[in-house]
Amino acid sequence: ARADDELSRLKQQIEELNQKVDALNQRETAPAPWDGLEIGGALQLDYNHFDGAYNATHEGRTGSDLFPRRVRAYIGSEHGDWDYKLLMDFSDDAEIVMARLRYSGFERGPVVQLGKLREDISLEALSSSAHLVMIERSSLANTVSPYFRWGASAYQFFPSSGLRYAFGVYKNDAFGDSGKDDSERLNYATSGRLTWAPKREQGEVLHLGLWASYRDMSGDELSASWARGEVRETPVRLVDYAAGGAPVAVDHLTQQGLELAAQWHSLLFQAEYARRELSTEDSASDLDGRDFDGYSASLSYFLTGEARTYKASQGVFRQPDGVRNAWEVAARTSRVDASSANQGTDVTSHTLGLSYYYDTNLKFMLNLIRSRVSGPGAPALVGNERDANAVVLRTQYQF
Amino acid sequence: ARADDELSRLKQQIEELNQKVDALNQRETAPAPWDGLEIGGALQLDYNHFDGAYNATHEGRTGSDLFPRRVRAYIGSEHGDWDYKLLMDFSDDAEIVMARLRYSGFERGPVVQLGKLREDISLEALSSSAHLVMIERSSLANTVSPYFRWGASAYQFFPSSGLRYAFGVYKNDAFGDSGKDDSERLNYATSGRLTWAPKREQGEVLHLGLWASYRDMSGDELSASWARGEVRETPVRLVDYAAGGAPVAVDHLTQQGLELAAQWHSLLFQAEYARRELSTEDSASDLDGRDFDGYSASLSYFLTGEARTYKASQGVFRQPDGVRNAWEVAARTSRVDASSANQGTDVTSHTLGLSYYYDTNLKFMLNLIRSRVSGPGAPALVGNERDANAVVLRTQYQF
Amino acid sequence: ARADDELSRLKQQIEELNQKVDALNQRETAPAPWDGLEIGGALQLDYNHFDGAYNATHEGRTGSDLFPRRVRAYIGSEHGDWDYKLLMDFSDDAEIVMARLRYSGFERGPVVQLGKLREDISLEALSSSAHLVMIERSSLANTVSPYFRWGASAYQFFPSSGLRYAFGVYKNDAFGDSGKDDSERLNYATSGRLTWAPKREQGEVLHLGLWASYRDMSGDELSASWARGEVRETPVRLVDYAAGGAPVAVDHLTQQGLELAAQWHSLLFQAEYARRELSTEDSASDLDGRDFDGYSASLSYFLTGEARTYKASQGVFRQPDGVRNAWEVAARTSRVDASSANQGTDVTSHTLGLSYYYDTNLKFMLNLIRSRVSGPGAPALVGNERDANAVVLRTQYQF
Repeated sequence: ARADDELSRLKQQIEELNQKVDALNQRETAPAPWDGLEIGGALQLDYNHFDGAYNATHEGRTGSDLFPRRVRAYIGSEHGDWDYKLLMDFSDDAEIVMARLRYSGFERGPVVQLGKLREDISLEALSSSAHLVMIERSSLANTVSPYFRWGASAYQFFPSSGLRYAFGVYKNDAFGDSGKDDSERLNYATSGRLTWAPKREQGEVLHLGLWASYRDMSGDELSASWARGEVRETPVRLVDYAAGGAPVAVDHLTQQGLELAAQWHSLLFQAEYARRELSTEDSASDLDGRDFDGYSASLSYFLTGEARTYKASQGVFRQPDGVRNAWEVAARTSRVDASSANQGTDVTSHTLGLSYYYDTNLKFMLNLIRSRVSGPGAPALVGNERDANAVVLRTQYQF
Repeated sequence: ARADDELSRLKQQIEELNQKVDALNQRETAPAPWDGLEIGGALQLDYNHFDGAYNATHEGRTGSDLFPRRVRAYIGSEHGDWDYKLLMDFSDDAEIVMARLRYSGFERGPVVQLGKLREDISLEALSSSAHLVMIERSSLANTVSPYFRWGASAYQFFPSSGLRYAFGVYKNDAFGDSGKDDSERLNYATSGRLTWAPKREQGEVLHLGLWASYRDMSGDELSASWARGEVRETPVRLVDYAAGGAPVAVDHLTQQGLELAAQWHSLLFQAEYARRELSTEDSASDLDGRDFDGYSASLSYFLTGEARTYKASQGVFRQPDGVRNAWEVAARTSRVDASSANQGTDVTSHTLGLSYYYDTNLKFMLNLIRSRVSGPGAPALVGNERDANAVVLRTQYQF
Repeated sequence: ARADDELSRLKQQIEELNQKVDALNQRETAPAPWDGLEIGGALQLDYNHFDGAYNATHEGRTGSDLFPRRVRAYIGSEHGDWDYKLLMDFSDDAEIVMARLRYSGFERGPVVQLGKLREDISLEALSSSAHLVMIERSSLANTVSPYFRWGASAYQFFPSSGLRYAFGVYKNDAFGDSGKDDSERLNYATSGRLTWAPKREQGEVLHLGLWASYRDMSGDELSASWARGEVRETPVRLVDYAAGGAPVAVDHLTQQGLELAAQWHSLLFQAEYARRELSTEDSASDLDGRDFDGYSASLSYFLTGEARTYKASQGVFRQPDGVRNAWEVAARTSRVDASSANQGTDVTSHTLGLSYYYDTNLKFMLNLIRSRVSGPGAPALVGNERDANAVVLRTQYQF
């Protein structure tokens, strides 16, 4: 009888199992073509409100704009040791932001990549726009980084020591260069970065970095405007080495930078210093051998206790993993001195920031920015409007 | 012995179950990134054939074109109470049609949305282009609707009463406005719509609506051409308030409209009336305070017995759910009087339509259109070609 | 006791099954919207290095470029007997390469298709760019093929005989035609192709083809440059019927071509001949009735033993199915004589190619090209630089 009871119980269990398995069999499954594929994107919708030097062409009156800062979509394909990612931005026509073909198959060697790649210049420029402390990057990062260029690069992280190197060669069609010389031959840029993270535990990070870049300009004119002054849609771009004078034809330029970041739980300090030296086509130019420099320093703190994630393999910070219902405050100061003897501006910006993370996908940001313009080119660029104020709002959704 | 029999039967059942479960384990499944994602698109391939006023710049001879009216792709992301949809059109460069971030988490409150959104103006303008009765919207809808603009809006449907309201604030870069005033300050537009569907059962719908919009134009010139005359690729755009005169700089404009729709099974009647009033920059202008108006009325009928679906939560009609092998006939008349004392045209259009629905994804449409142009601006715009005829064909695939 | 043992063993098996089934139930599965959808794309990243006639505008010095030759993404949708594929290229703005709506439901009838379709002209022009023997198509294919155009076509393959026909009608906005005549009426092109593959087994193929095309140009000027000379980013385009003279307005043009392909295991020979005849607007023109012609012949061989796949239903070759770690060598010669009595060039190109297939997704290619320019227009186009040399590299990833 006990055996019979057991038997009927077993029979019932088997019956239930059969039903579950049949239900499973009727569930839809993914077709093979989806293997290794990934799709996603992001929206950054910004509101800018500004006056003073930012709107000097309209007597410094209050200007404003509502606009899509970034409207992105990507496809990723992973395939053995190779992966490819195409990242498009549609906010202003269709632009390839990144088209990266990457090989990670060398056991103890570097990761190598080909395509439109982010040049290894500046901690802030290398941080994803979706993970920044402030809405816009500092004038320093925007001055020195050409962001994504067509070329090839390699990088390697050594987990034992926390060292990481990266080096690449690119077509230099940035900063006003056409990408070609007078014979239609490629102009190259080379960039390299070395970082060391002696401390790299979650919430306790020390990051040191240095980078350098050489850019062949083959006599093309260096673009006048180096940075907008940390607000996107203003009529006047404040950091301008040619204001009050003229742009200059450049044979090549060199840049170097230093990075420091220290994290103690919810508190993160990031600082950078960089310089740019021009070698002009006309060696009699005032600007030949002229050295420009700048810095940026920010402090950010999560009121709700989270800590940004240090991605040691890339040497950058990201928003906290799994962040949800979090508040972050931040302050930043930056300066880029683009002035020389007779022209150019020297711009200092101070920013206060407040961010609310609804969750990992959704973030709302508020930045208050105050910039000050000086230098011999200031009167020509902004007249008497030497101060500039802005309120910037962002809604960001990523998926 | 009975127990033994039972046991061996159970053993066999367990063996079969094991095989089924192993097979299931080897089936492919979707990776996590696909959760909440959606992809789709549409093709509308059109053929236009026209003469008379539509081709007045070529003595009214027969003209024709074959072209992609819409080539669309979208990505959707759903994530808790939030959803995002990016809809692109590639038929003529890459254009963001819609970029909507939406929150539906308020239990008894409105749905709120941010991004590039459809303004709540006109029943026909709010109906998806893939679900219209005719190939092109009426001149009235094209005159009054700016379609999608960057901004924020909210709407709410009350299922108990059938009432629905919608209200939004947008950057007004439509109708010739640059979106900014002379100080680079945003020009705003506000639009609101109120609809009531006292009857809203499948196949038995009564829909009443009214909407209004205020648009700050800050002295920008109102675009001359208000609508093409219900055929897409014609050299002449018939509805033109400036024909025979000149466009006028406008301080702001206001618009209002009324909607009526009644459905009795396969039969659907939709009608709209709307007016536009200009407040010109120069108060001495003839057009200051000038009132323009128009109407549109259509009747459609499914020969095969289907009924369009009323989407009460949005206050619009869609093609019948699960439609397959269906035939629909339709007639429409519309008029927009864009004429004033000394300039502008007054255009009436009549359309006959026949649609074949292969299924929900695929539809073929044929429209015959006859328009008539009058008003003081007609001689300047179309000379003696006061009548215009067109045959339009569409193949539409959506997925 | 034996029964008890069996029972406890069965109980344990059922317990294990339950755990497996629970695990399966927690696995993610694809949502319904993914059915019938397909997504993919490709990157072709090229490096060009050239001199001589290719860079005659810079005294024949060495020029170079690194650029994305193709950056593609597609969405496909299959739905019963219908399928749709939208193929975009983003390498230079967003361009619709193909937008094909296709019906394959006729049991013994043709496949019919609508949209932006590949015209049935030239074996090499019809072969996918990702599956070519060389990096660029021959000057012949680039001269005669308009590639993708908006229109409708039909094709049918007869498996019993190996015969295949294809015929289409398109909007002719290629070769300098605006697509419209002076009355804004469509200019049409018609193209047809007939192929026969008496042998069509894997690795043993004989393919014979002929095609013809009529193109209404309604007096538009035929574009001067017919082909670049098999290197993409050179300042000078070598095949130019107007060099040293002037482009001519054309009433219509006709083209015909012959195709031959023979495959013996790893060895593949492909050859084409084609001619173009102009009917100029001005019947007194030297070029009226003028006949231009050209040929292309290539030989390719897999050192590692693979064989390209003949896709009989389309009448083209593709890379070997499941190719992996394979090496292919190839040689090609081509000539297009675009010269007439007083103008135009006559260009011969020789190419050596080496390709390494990492696998079906990834391929690396090297081409060495030598071209020679003659004809009455050569001095005007390339001065004394009658020879042209190039080294071209490609990395190709498709998914």
